[in-house]
Amino acid sequence: MKLPLGYRFAATYAGLRKVNTEDLGLIISDTPASAAAVTTKNLVQAAPVKIARQHLRASRGRVSAVLVNAGNANCATRTGDQVALACCKAVANKLKVPVAQVIPASTGVIGVEMDEKLVVEAIPRLFEDLLDSRFPDVVHAMMTTDTVPKMAFAEVPLKGGEVQIAGMTKGSGMIHPNMATTLGFVMTDAAISPIHLREMLVRAVNRSYNRLSVDGDTSTNDIVLLLANGASEIKPSERERRTFEESLSLVMEDLAEQIARDGEGANKLITIRVVGAQDEESAVRIARSIANSPLVKTAIAGSDPNWGRILSAAGNSGVDFDLNKVDISLQGVPVCIGGFAADFSEMELKTKLDDKECLIRFELRGDGKGETRFWTCDFTEGYIKINASYRT
Amino acid sequence: MKLPLGYRFAATYAGLRKVNTEDLGLIISDTPASAAAVTTKNLVQAAPVKIARQHLRASRGRVSAVLVNAGNANCATRTGDQVALACCKAVANKLKVPVAQVIPASTGVIGVEMDEKLVVEAIPRLFEDLLDSRFPDVVHAMMTTDTVPKMAFAEVPLKGGEVQIAGMTKGSGMIHPNMATTLGFVMTDAAISPIHLREMLVRAVNRSYNRLSVDGDTSTNDIVLLLANGASEIKPSERERRTFEESLSLVMEDLAEQIARDGEGANKLITIRVVGAQDEESAVRIARSIANSPLVKTAIAGSDPNWGRILSAAGNSGVDFDLNKVDISLQGVPVCIGGFAADFSEMELKTKLDDKECLIRFELRGDGKGETRFWTCDFTEGYIKINASYRT
Repeated sequence: MKLPLGYRFAATYAGLRKVNTEDLGLIISDTPASAAAVTTKNLVQAAPVKIARQHLRASRGRVSAVLVNAGNANCATRTGDQVALACCKAVANKLKVPVAQVIPASTGVIGVEMDEKLVVEAIPRLFEDLLDSRFPDVVHAMMTTDTVPKMAFAEVPLKGGEVQIAGMTKGSGMIHPNMATTLGFVMTDAAISPIHLREMLVRAVNRSYNRLSVDGDTSTNDIVLLLANGASEIKPSERERRTFEESLSLVMEDLAEQIARDGEGANKLITIRVVGAQDEESAVRIARSIANSPLVKTAIAGSDPNWGRILSAAGNSGVDFDLNKVDISLQGVPVCIGGFAADFSEMELKTKLDDKECLIRFELRGDGKGETRFWTCDFTEGYIKINASYRT
Repeated sequence: MKLPLGYRFAATYAGLRKVNTEDLGLIISDTPASAAAVTTKNLVQAAPVKIARQHLRASRGRVSAVLVNAGNANCATRTGDQVALACCKAVANKLKVPVAQVIPASTGVIGVEMDEKLVVEAIPRLFEDLLDSRFPDVVHAMMTTDTVPKMAFAEVPLKGGEVQIAGMTKGSGMIHPNMATTLGFVMTDAAISPIHLREMLVRAVNRSYNRLSVDGDTSTNDIVLLLANGASEIKPSERERRTFEESLSLVMEDLAEQIARDGEGANKLITIRVVGAQDEESAVRIARSIANSPLVKTAIAGSDPNWGRILSAAGNSGVDFDLNKVDISLQGVPVCIGGFAADFSEMELKTKLDDKECLIRFELRGDGKGETRFWTCDFTEGYIKINASYRT
């Protein structure tokens, strides 16, 4: 991994988690970076999300630091705004930048007041140990039910030289489009304006995080933040921005795929391809309906080629399609042709479905150009174990 | 239990299930009954559902027999319509009634051709053994993952005498508003026209089956059918129809509650009360969003008073409400007051949540009149076990 220039990282244990493992991370950019963010659409929004949006507005998209914690979502808390602000101020004072250049992010339990003192007292420790190589430590500091740290990198060759993209993310409860907190921080040393960053981020999120079974229905704390500090001194031309965006999108797709793969208790990554729909929106609706079906997800967990559940889930998507034009394949094996059972060896397919990766392909015959790719995971007993005892 | 007059029942093993247990049931009404039905809204509709609707139209709401099977949904099958029709004809011939007076219903695996011969050959056996007391046998014949047979009864005292209502239902996979086949057959010996039956049924379904986490998103095979054969020779007056409808609704609410209680792998019945919403629709949307949240359902399974998940689920409902007016209680214990944590003993509440019945109350303070009651169940490891190996 090659990191973008001009960023430094640190993490420490502030005492927000019950167990003594890093729960507070800091990302700083040596010069204020251009920034763009996408945040949760949930009506219930955690204090850090609200403050993050306010700060991005106030600073006109300039960010010098990101302070992220696990162990407490700082959501539905009486002191939420005040605590989030105080933490940002402590960082801003150290950096001697306006408080609006500090972005807070939190993940953890909802409805428990967050102890401001724990965080504020830990902040000086973060500054003692800032290193560009401590990138992975921040990833660890924001993990909750994640079983693996999630990072992705890209090198983008441009006329003026190479720029780097580095992304980190957390998120795991991707079983349902509900309340699985996703945090994502993507950094580059390219020089790009906040306006262009925003356009790129929206499109890249649409091809990555919004193609997980998360999307519009989001957690109280979700935020994906993109920073470009220009430390490479390379400013992509208009045409080069497309190359850059392509790499950005790949990094974010990689991160999203890692989240799906690490779904709570998940054994298998499920990739759903829908092709031939009337338009992209219809394709996404069909894919999401399949991805959200617990009956499909449990069938895949059991390596059961029960394609009727896939067809029925698509039928519940609200998209109108001709049943007799539906072809479904699993692991490349046709199981449904023209809406009816294909002739396949159940035993052989069962073995193929034991694989760690499962591909569901749903095709509508005809000339529809709408297609999408969507990720989810299988649904195992582990999910229940994790979520029945999250707070205990 | 007191059964309505003029109905007889039978069940047998036709060979559609792998295990030798009743899989074919017959309900007959000695005289053609008035009938009304509510069927699935899934785009993918099983052959028996389509035929049922055609028959009800053709017969102008007259039904002499219902033939129901488990073991095969007869959905996404090449021979679906033809097989369903042939089965109806075999019954109609025996009864010497028009085929349109026979309603087929199926539940089981999708996409496997149904063997017409097995059913047609079993039908004479059903007629050998028709008895009014064999009501429960039909319930058993349509059980799939149900762990208990589900029936409910009511006696309605009217001026002219008593009429009886008897309902049977199957359904269990109520974990998500997706593809959990529900069949419901409710019979009465009152004399009521198909038009009035239809009005009553729609309202009663709205207070019962549509308040499970099923509703608009339905299985390929769902049908709830209401029959009134007039065998009591008592015709409720306009005012008495309201009394009758009240009892009908209670019977159907009882059936719906039994389904939620028997959710696949469920240990607990969860009842969600939403009050103070702007209107009933908003209340239902909030309730459904809470009922469909796997994170809420797993928390309840683990007796974890994690009210933040309830608040967040409500925030994802799409209903606009003032966070600071939200009160949430669990088992009557306030856990969230005005959007913030209430002061409660977590240990005591945990013990209360170990109960087999859990009540979630979500109140919006103010003068909103919208309220609802909604049923679901907790989400346990048993659900996964059942659904990962449904076909094997």
